[in-house]
Amino acid sequence: MLTISILVMFINYDASAQGEKPYVRIAKLTIDSLQLEQYKSALTEHAQTAVKVEPGVLTLYAVADKKDPTHILVFEIYADEEAYKLHLESAHFKKYKALTKDMVTSLDLMETIPLALASKAHW
Amino acid sequence: MLTISILVMFINYDASAQGEKPYVRIAKLTIDSLQLEQYKSALTEHAQTAVKVEPGVLTLYAVADKKDPTHILVFEIYADEEAYKLHLESAHFKKYKALTKDMVTSLDLMETIPLALASKAHW
Repeated sequence: MLTISILVMFINYDASAQGEKPYVRIAKLTIDSLQLEQYKSALTEHAQTAVKVEPGVLTLYAVADKKDPTHILVFEIYADEEAYKLHLESAHFKKYKALTKDMVTSLDLMETIPLALASKAHW
Repeated sequence: MLTISILVMFINYDASAQGEKPYVRIAKLTIDSLQLEQYKSALTEHAQTAVKVEPGVLTLYAVADKKDPTHILVFEIYADEEAYKLHLESAHFKKYKALTKDMVTSLDLMETIPLALASKAHW
């Protein structure tokens, strides 16, 4: 019975109904096409490490534009702005930045206002 | 003990390690500034309903650009492409589209290739 209740649980975030908000950012990157495979490996390793070891890094979803896979977007959810600042100081983030600095040809960072963060907990 | 194990469980998706993929799309919208509040209400209600009632709608994360809140991005995860097609036929999606058709001044839909979908299960 407990298992069933977990499977049907939802995370439904309504910005207007809560005072405390997660901190959500979007990074848009363009990658040197000759280094795309190496970049994707570095990004994937970094995202999985950050979510695993940092309590305040809640979600890092990285996708490529199907029409132009050198265009990458990362949807980032942190517990709060402080968690994002801690993330920037982490050893794995610094390693990722050093490893990829010559692979990224453009970087556009966006702060956002969360409107609705609706998700099933598991899939 | 069970509660603890759930809290530290992660969803770590490595595209290269799995054959079956979720289907991830991004919608970028510009909203008529005079109708922004009504639009946000319609969008929030629609996102929460879709995730709650449709088995294949896994995640709908909607955020506004802090620099220009009329610019909205929705990060959408479906179980597969079929689930997305079913979503387009749902009563709540059709209601949302009818309600917002005169509020949306531009709409850019993007298909993506998931690279890393790393997330803590709960926050």
